[in-house]
Amino acid sequence: MTTNKTVRLAQRPKGPVKPEDFDIREEDLADPGEGEIRVRNAFVSLDPAMRGWMNEGKSYVPPVGIGDVMRGFAAGQVEASRHPGFKEGDTVTGLLGVQNYAISDGKGVSLADTSLAPLQTWVGGLGMPGLTAYFGLLKVAEAKEGDTVVVSAASGAVGQVVGQIANIIGCRSVGIAGGPEKCDFIKSEFGFDAAVDYKAGNLFGDLKTACPDGIDVDFENVGGDIFDTVLAQMNPFGRIAVCGLISMYNATELPPGPKNLRNVLVMRLRMQGFIVFDFIKHNQEAMTALGGWYKDGKLKFKEDIRDGGVEAFPAVLSELYTGGNFGKLILKL
Amino acid sequence: MTTNKTVRLAQRPKGPVKPEDFDIREEDLADPGEGEIRVRNAFVSLDPAMRGWMNEGKSYVPPVGIGDVMRGFAAGQVEASRHPGFKEGDTVTGLLGVQNYAISDGKGVSLADTSLAPLQTWVGGLGMPGLTAYFGLLKVAEAKEGDTVVVSAASGAVGQVVGQIANIIGCRSVGIAGGPEKCDFIKSEFGFDAAVDYKAGNLFGDLKTACPDGIDVDFENVGGDIFDTVLAQMNPFGRIAVCGLISMYNATELPPGPKNLRNVLVMRLRMQGFIVFDFIKHNQEAMTALGGWYKDGKLKFKEDIRDGGVEAFPAVLSELYTGGNFGKLILKL
Repeated sequence: MTTNKTVRLAQRPKGPVKPEDFDIREEDLADPGEGEIRVRNAFVSLDPAMRGWMNEGKSYVPPVGIGDVMRGFAAGQVEASRHPGFKEGDTVTGLLGVQNYAISDGKGVSLADTSLAPLQTWVGGLGMPGLTAYFGLLKVAEAKEGDTVVVSAASGAVGQVVGQIANIIGCRSVGIAGGPEKCDFIKSEFGFDAAVDYKAGNLFGDLKTACPDGIDVDFENVGGDIFDTVLAQMNPFGRIAVCGLISMYNATELPPGPKNLRNVLVMRLRMQGFIVFDFIKHNQEAMTALGGWYKDGKLKFKEDIRDGGVEAFPAVLSELYTGGNFGKLILKL
Repeated sequence: MTTNKTVRLAQRPKGPVKPEDFDIREEDLADPGEGEIRVRNAFVSLDPAMRGWMNEGKSYVPPVGIGDVMRGFAAGQVEASRHPGFKEGDTVTGLLGVQNYAISDGKGVSLADTSLAPLQTWVGGLGMPGLTAYFGLLKVAEAKEGDTVVVSAASGAVGQVVGQIANIIGCRSVGIAGGPEKCDFIKSEFGFDAAVDYKAGNLFGDLKTACPDGIDVDFENVGGDIFDTVLAQMNPFGRIAVCGLISMYNATELPPGPKNLRNVLVMRLRMQGFIVFDFIKHNQEAMTALGGWYKDGKLKFKEDIRDGGVEAFPAVLSELYTGGNFGKLILKL
């Protein structure tokens, strides 16, 4: 029998996460049953969405149950397989949890080709951020060559990939970010065609300059006034993929929606909310495309990989919400 | 040479339309050229959208030019054809204008089968309202059997058809209308499964009662608080066809958008604006379906047909905006 170390949710956090919200312990792990695999996790992705998963109540995925292993997107190696789709030694990714070992029935587990990218990158840029960018831009917004694509929170883990995929498929990529440093960074590091600093005080005019032919696709991470301004400059038949609405998350009451919603009608826009899990059956397709682009040097990511194993999870996770990380936060298990 | 009587736009109306905004005159009409038809118009549809078409400025269709024949959806008979798709005696509908005769290249002109419905009904319930309801419900919102479909302005020309098509395809049809009379009417006359009176002061609760399994499809004609309340009760992967936003049309400044826009993300909703002209190439398909349902007694319309010919156009049109009509307004030419 294998000894596993797990991070289990001990209680629902109130406000910021604290160490006592988690129960980290060693436990015995049974061998995989028929149709199952055992994965030795090597890296786990730390994502802003994790905080929401710990809350009670109706949301897009069921909350992590008290006493359950904390949900997490991890990558590792198959150590034992009784599943026809996987063999010993395969490297895989999926929602394998914050733990050293996972038993899985293979649902939502994809092969991670380490000849294309190192394993940590499969939970970094090529993990949830890459998949989210891929599905949102290509499946939801249906961006195509020649489109002007705007993405908010453009220096974030998802935003930076959106801009790069936009470039790869022949779009004009325009990122909205806060401050000149982030704006310079997304242009020099990730090749955005233009960057707009929403803190500079002239968002409407600066966006207009960055998008002289209007906006065909908006990859929306922020909501609020930024979204409203983008909405005002959308072209007819434009598409809006709503991936996040950061500006609303901390509101104590629901803020008013965008004034320019009338443009949905006048410009015949399509606005669609999505989450990465909705497209789980296309994961392997997306990973093949993303991995290929990465290998060819067309995709770059800023990753921030931490040591410490599962014990370090609570402390490292906190940094996500206090701005302690720079780049996609990954914990080495 | 044929003598035609036309209604031409003399000036852009300020506020409500007045007789002097139009120039009604007799003029010579040339014979149809190669690839053209001449249609003797019999009925023209009077639609709320007409007021917008007369305004200067960027909108979903170019404004009617000063001196141009007023745009209008009309039905009539082909008197002469040099077009391979039409022959003398065919009954047709299309944007043939407010005039006794139209010369057309056949673009957007569809055959109106008078064995299914009388000609006036092809500009009445089976005209723009029927097409709008058909495209919005089936092509944009992709309503399907078992869905709960909500439509606002449900007693209006479009709304009443939306509810009936919803019933035909096996949906639960819920109409939102103002006052008990309209609510009773849409249930007894058009067979809506439920009606919600937005003036009764308990919209959220009444809608909840009418939609015990939540809302899968919203056919939105109104916007504002009504839309916001519907948005709060949408089911995951719900679809919203934005057909009109009446509540905003008279606003002097843009009103705030819906507070529940966050549900677009959480519930992964798809919201899409459309106008009937976007689907013009599917007109014949829609007319075949609508005409068949009408002939089978599954579709009913409230029509209000006026005499008076083109001269009566300005006066009859005004009634649309002063509530002088009851049912779809049609002018006999």
